[in-house]
Amino acid sequence: MPPIAGVELASVAAGVRYKGRTDLFLAELPPGATVAGALTKSLTASAPVEWCRRNLAEGRARAVLVNSGNANAFTGKKGYDAAVATAEAAAKAIGCEASEIFLASTGVIGELLPAQKVVDAIPALRQGLKSASWAESAKAIMTTDTFPKGATRRTRIGDVPVTINGICKGSGMIAPDMATMLGFVFTDAEIPAPVLQEMLSRGVERSFNCITVDSDTSTSDTVLLFATGKVTHPPVESAKDTHLRDFREALEDLLTDMAIQIVRDGEGAQKLVTIDVTGAASPRAAKRIGLAIANSPLVKTAIAGEDANWGRIVMAVGKSGEWADRDKLAIRIGGVEVAAEGAAVEGYDETPVVAHMKGSEILIEVDVGVGRGRSRVWTCDLTHGYIDINGSYRS
Amino acid sequence: MPPIAGVELASVAAGVRYKGRTDLFLAELPPGATVAGALTKSLTASAPVEWCRRNLAEGRARAVLVNSGNANAFTGKKGYDAAVATAEAAAKAIGCEASEIFLASTGVIGELLPAQKVVDAIPALRQGLKSASWAESAKAIMTTDTFPKGATRRTRIGDVPVTINGICKGSGMIAPDMATMLGFVFTDAEIPAPVLQEMLSRGVERSFNCITVDSDTSTSDTVLLFATGKVTHPPVESAKDTHLRDFREALEDLLTDMAIQIVRDGEGAQKLVTIDVTGAASPRAAKRIGLAIANSPLVKTAIAGEDANWGRIVMAVGKSGEWADRDKLAIRIGGVEVAAEGAAVEGYDETPVVAHMKGSEILIEVDVGVGRGRSRVWTCDLTHGYIDINGSYRS
Repeated sequence: MPPIAGVELASVAAGVRYKGRTDLFLAELPPGATVAGALTKSLTASAPVEWCRRNLAEGRARAVLVNSGNANAFTGKKGYDAAVATAEAAAKAIGCEASEIFLASTGVIGELLPAQKVVDAIPALRQGLKSASWAESAKAIMTTDTFPKGATRRTRIGDVPVTINGICKGSGMIAPDMATMLGFVFTDAEIPAPVLQEMLSRGVERSFNCITVDSDTSTSDTVLLFATGKVTHPPVESAKDTHLRDFREALEDLLTDMAIQIVRDGEGAQKLVTIDVTGAASPRAAKRIGLAIANSPLVKTAIAGEDANWGRIVMAVGKSGEWADRDKLAIRIGGVEVAAEGAAVEGYDETPVVAHMKGSEILIEVDVGVGRGRSRVWTCDLTHGYIDINGSYRS
Repeated sequence: MPPIAGVELASVAAGVRYKGRTDLFLAELPPGATVAGALTKSLTASAPVEWCRRNLAEGRARAVLVNSGNANAFTGKKGYDAAVATAEAAAKAIGCEASEIFLASTGVIGELLPAQKVVDAIPALRQGLKSASWAESAKAIMTTDTFPKGATRRTRIGDVPVTINGICKGSGMIAPDMATMLGFVFTDAEIPAPVLQEMLSRGVERSFNCITVDSDTSTSDTVLLFATGKVTHPPVESAKDTHLRDFREALEDLLTDMAIQIVRDGEGAQKLVTIDVTGAASPRAAKRIGLAIANSPLVKTAIAGEDANWGRIVMAVGKSGEWADRDKLAIRIGGVEVAAEGAAVEGYDETPVVAHMKGSEILIEVDVGVGRGRSRVWTCDLTHGYIDINGSYRS
């Protein structure tokens, strides 16, 4: 990934929980950088989420500090104090307000963050700051992830080239309801915080909020978007500016790319599943139907077993609670129509469907026959690997 | 299980799908018998569910005919015609209206019921009718169940002893939203259909609608309650009759017993999990929180791994969307307080908790600290067995 003017990165092994790997990531930003965020809707949100929520309104950022191994969630006032202590230490080192330091933590819930380990690591982190260590940064924030995740887009505002880079983590406890993982996106463009926020909220709704691994919404989900303002381009005043169109599209494309990487690395996942719902009463209804299918353990285990068991898709549509015409329902798997007008397509050619189910990317299309609402969501299969990973996570 | 005056039962191997086992069950009832039902809320309900829904309003029943191996769901008009054909054949043999024959089917979705096989088996079924073959009947309706399920209660109306027997099946595709399985309950009492319906609806809400195996609501869920009127007791006019109190309690107790048997036999289940939620804003909120915990794959895999990972319980409370005070939340596992006032109980004795997690019955108590609403739900753990069963169900 290319550098982003104004962003310097570093990661170190602070020993928060893991041994022999990096677990602390810092990105520093220049004075004047702006920030937008999308945070979990969980009512048991973590201390860092609470901290970010308080400081996002100001829209100014000088750094983001992220640890893995400990989520600092459900740790009460002590946990919040621990978060504040790390922000204050970073602010002092950088020479800014603590409110300009954004925080995220991921890992075990319910254990107090060892704040001193983080504080002690800040000098070493700052010494290692470079503009080109995106892959190392993505590694430092991993938990059960099996590969580091990142994406980059080159776009333009007016005629001026700008860059957007993002790194993220996430593998389990992934369900849509903002934002289901940690994601950090940086651009060298100069964009006011309210405009940044509008674009991020819209983009997240169509990307991170359309993925599910296991229907479990995390206490810590955080997506932050930072703009360093280091590139001079026609000024941006509103998210609706016509010269922002390319940027908006590139941002949404990048967020979708990142979201799909998370599903692809879903805990135990062997297959990436794309679900297109059409013919629903509204886009919102289509998304609910899509997620009912994507979250169904019976659909997900059938996919793991490479079984084109579309009866379970029918079941999931039925349980979604959204309006569907049972006798108009149509289902395609891998592009082949297997059910139409509320019943199996008699004598359809199973051969291409069986072959499709053996692949690593599965496409399910469902038309529920009542309107024009459509939505696309992504999930993965449910395998023995998920049980292995989550039956012994803490031990 | 004892006989119920007026009920005769039989089962045969009709070869609907399975080989070498019974798959068709008939219970015949005397003229004047009444019926109440609770049916799936799925919008893709099966043909037999549709048939029962149409005929329940009349409240009269002469038989219930149930097959396993084929759900006759998502089979369009042909499927409905197949259901009608079996009802008409049974009605002709018995000498009653087709609307007095209740139907249920369980098994694969999307394949047309071979109605002729059912019709052809009716004479043999009727020849085998007896008043004492409850266990055989429960076996005939099994699919992935590993044991037949039934319960009986002896109670009284006024001073007159009456009996209630129930059989049920269900193991996967079990989620609360009425009724998530098949259940057939019979009593020799004389109870008008509207009173029967009121008692059943109330009882189901606290039993079958409080269980979940995998959050997947079936297209075929059916609970039917029949009263033969063969015992003479003080007349029943309303569900609120004081002399019906013992009966109501016995019925609810029996329904709960049956529901718990289903969870205990959840696909791949090794542990029965009881979740008590207290301190919620309302009973409804408490139930939603309980089900969010019960349906969380991360909570269920932790239990499978015998890990008292209460952080995941916190997560599930947070994602439920119901009001909870994070900083007052308290969690007990096996009676031991592990979290209180929004944080881990420092230095709590892990020994009894570890021992409890190794047992086959797990108790989780959560107080969310905002009100007086309470609810109890039941679930099971999520194991490799569930993946095995559902990754290869059709093959």
